[in-house]
Amino acid sequence: MDLNPADEAFEAGLRAVLPEQVFRDASPSYFEEPRGLVAGVEGVVVAPGSTDEVATLVRACAEARVGIVPYGGGTGLVGGQVMDEGARPVVLSLERMTRIRDVYPQENVLVAEAGCILADVQSAADDAGRLFPLSLASEGSARVGGILSTNAGGVNVLRYGNARDLCLGLEAVLPDGSVWNGLKRLRKDNTGYDLRGLLVGAEGTLGIITAASLRLFPSPATLGTALMAVRDPEAALALFALAGDVAGTSVSAFELISGVGAAFLVETGMPAQCPIDPIPGWSVLIELGMGTNDAPDAVLATLFERALEAGLVSDGVIAQSEAQRGAIWAMREEIPLANRKVGAVSSHDISLPLSEVPGFLTEADRVIAGLGPFRVNAFGHLGDGNLHYNIFPPEGGSRDAFADRREDVARAVYDLVAARGGSFSAEHGVGRFKVGELAHYGDRAKLAVMRAIKQALDPKGIMNPGVLF
Amino acid sequence: MDLNPADEAFEAGLRAVLPEQVFRDASPSYFEEPRGLVAGVEGVVVAPGSTDEVATLVRACAEARVGIVPYGGGTGLVGGQVMDEGARPVVLSLERMTRIRDVYPQENVLVAEAGCILADVQSAADDAGRLFPLSLASEGSARVGGILSTNAGGVNVLRYGNARDLCLGLEAVLPDGSVWNGLKRLRKDNTGYDLRGLLVGAEGTLGIITAASLRLFPSPATLGTALMAVRDPEAALALFALAGDVAGTSVSAFELISGVGAAFLVETGMPAQCPIDPIPGWSVLIELGMGTNDAPDAVLATLFERALEAGLVSDGVIAQSEAQRGAIWAMREEIPLANRKVGAVSSHDISLPLSEVPGFLTEADRVIAGLGPFRVNAFGHLGDGNLHYNIFPPEGGSRDAFADRREDVARAVYDLVAARGGSFSAEHGVGRFKVGELAHYGDRAKLAVMRAIKQALDPKGIMNPGVLF
Repeated sequence: MDLNPADEAFEAGLRAVLPEQVFRDASPSYFEEPRGLVAGVEGVVVAPGSTDEVATLVRACAEARVGIVPYGGGTGLVGGQVMDEGARPVVLSLERMTRIRDVYPQENVLVAEAGCILADVQSAADDAGRLFPLSLASEGSARVGGILSTNAGGVNVLRYGNARDLCLGLEAVLPDGSVWNGLKRLRKDNTGYDLRGLLVGAEGTLGIITAASLRLFPSPATLGTALMAVRDPEAALALFALAGDVAGTSVSAFELISGVGAAFLVETGMPAQCPIDPIPGWSVLIELGMGTNDAPDAVLATLFERALEAGLVSDGVIAQSEAQRGAIWAMREEIPLANRKVGAVSSHDISLPLSEVPGFLTEADRVIAGLGPFRVNAFGHLGDGNLHYNIFPPEGGSRDAFADRREDVARAVYDLVAARGGSFSAEHGVGRFKVGELAHYGDRAKLAVMRAIKQALDPKGIMNPGVLF
Repeated sequence: MDLNPADEAFEAGLRAVLPEQVFRDASPSYFEEPRGLVAGVEGVVVAPGSTDEVATLVRACAEARVGIVPYGGGTGLVGGQVMDEGARPVVLSLERMTRIRDVYPQENVLVAEAGCILADVQSAADDAGRLFPLSLASEGSARVGGILSTNAGGVNVLRYGNARDLCLGLEAVLPDGSVWNGLKRLRKDNTGYDLRGLLVGAEGTLGIITAASLRLFPSPATLGTALMAVRDPEAALALFALAGDVAGTSVSAFELISGVGAAFLVETGMPAQCPIDPIPGWSVLIELGMGTNDAPDAVLATLFERALEAGLVSDGVIAQSEAQRGAIWAMREEIPLANRKVGAVSSHDISLPLSEVPGFLTEADRVIAGLGPFRVNAFGHLGDGNLHYNIFPPEGGSRDAFADRREDVARAVYDLVAARGGSFSAEHGVGRFKVGELAHYGDRAKLAVMRAIKQALDPKGIMNPGVLF
């Protein structure tokens, strides 16, 4: 059944029951995709200041059958926060719900409202002598609600898990306007279906997360960071297993970097550069977080020696200062910026079973070469089997010249990923941009269950219309 | 709508489409609660040998509207595997689906069928030089399907998580007989609702898990185990925080033991006894798992010294051999056996926010003392905020003499737990025995969502009737 537009009468109704400050100017930023890929339908922008106000808004939308687009930091990469077609919606921004409600250092728990910016949550944890490990490029603007709704990942998933793993409990407004008070601070609670896990990653289609209890960790007392040049991705994978043998679960990051990405840093004149000269074909950033009595540098040195003996690595640097550590990380973190300057024809956030990664890279490079004179920059969270596999025009070429190949390239990549039991979306989600991929590659039985759950919880289809389905 | 009985005609229909070896003698063990608390309704016992056969059975039951009771190791403590009223069901045992389908040491993944016994999964991981960390008292008989369906916990949740956290993907037969092929080996996969997390902990009410991909870990190279006498539960909690500071995330177990439990070991003549003399009022078992270069004994010694300085501990032993380590663990593991010999009036598997544990223990002891001359043995996974809070008759007294107080005692305990934001079921689940508690203490909005999901996925109500709802 079609949704109704949030017209003047509807907005007047909202204004009659909600305070003035809930209503925001409809600034274009609320309707823009961060890379300008699509234009959003303009809507009524509201920023409730409390869970009760969120509930009032949702009840009004449910009654009038008006669509709601939940809006966090606006940093999503799959169009989940930008409705590009349909009746004028309510854009519900969490920007005014930014309170850290409580910090329990002894429990390793922090309770944050959904509008808190990720970096502020990290700081609040740090102030309490604790670590909130979720870390990603957009942490200065991404908000808790969006991070949870997209089950965000980042560089520390390997050791600490993704957003879902870091969430102990939720407060949320459901599609009928009822409030679920599920802000538990419990490590174990087997009392019925995992509604927490269901709302996390639901991309706003089953309700609006208004607050969350989040897991904190002891901050590692000592950190060790190294960049090691590896023979090839197969060797990188063997190095990962060796790192597990040598350093156990203290490995908190294991990032693959391709020579193409390191060369992009040179080509685009980025401040950070590869500390190994000449630039290796493949390298790996390894970080260990350990206790006070430990010497992560010594562990990394042992790892390097054993890897050298095994023929896995040829060169490497172990950071000897915080500055060197920063330089190694800067190199990793500036690769996406360099990518943006070069201009990708097509970008893919894929995951694979770990042992399938080397075979995939070889095969995909061959297939992509058959489709045109492309350059491939494959990099990312190898420890999680999560690669950003991005396709670029040849040096000096323009992405626009290859716009008509984009679909073929993407289909080829995803077909290879699917054949090896992988996923077409590792951490970015489905949003509106990958609805076609979900329908094509998704398991039939799972899709049927998803539709049944959506229909059961949001029968009017008001929650983030166009996302997932 | 009422379910139909699995009568002779229905069974004949099954026999016409399934091989002879699927049908088992209806041995009483399939209908017995392990402690004899209730008598199960006899049913047709089937043990399919493949996922296809499970699907055939479920389709037949759906068509005839016949109830299915999934049956794993039969070790559940909340009656999830024993239907105590209703029309003659099909009891679907996973006992013939015991294949470890694959082990991927390099990926830290193992794929097991739902009938695999937990101890066999642990062994298969160990044979591959890896750790499957889920460990609990019934590991010699509990099966993977039941462990996942109840989201089992155990002694290593603190470091490695519960069953849901250890599950990467599932294969399951849904209530309409369709098969979800979700056996992914991915660490990141953001492609729609978390059906894995929903089926884990659904206690067989949304489908039948037939296989799972499970997470493995590097086996810790070195282990350290200590028992430390603590001043009181408040000191135990401070010791837990200190252990995090000293040993980081290498703390894999942190178990609280009360003097009452240690005295029960003496009273019932158990082989294991408390290694600290005299028996302390409260003690804590701490285990660290570390790397090759580490010395967990030295870390435990440092922890003990610092705790002594802070006035948290008064005595302690650090295991100096595998035999001593075994003796400390045996003491912890034999407490539930001693409990059974003493005979509890009422047993409670509760969880609390960590910082609420000491206050709860003080308050609950006072309230229980007001209800009768009871002895309280509170012990368990303090690091998870999960206590087994069990009430016993006075020495020489009989549980039967207090049978009429059971309900008052349980209600008093759960009321105190709820008031402090805790859970009436930390790791055992709801099953059939705690349906009343779920209805009473559950969040209204969450219960409505649960009912909506159950209705959407199992509209005929055939899956484990009487569980949860």
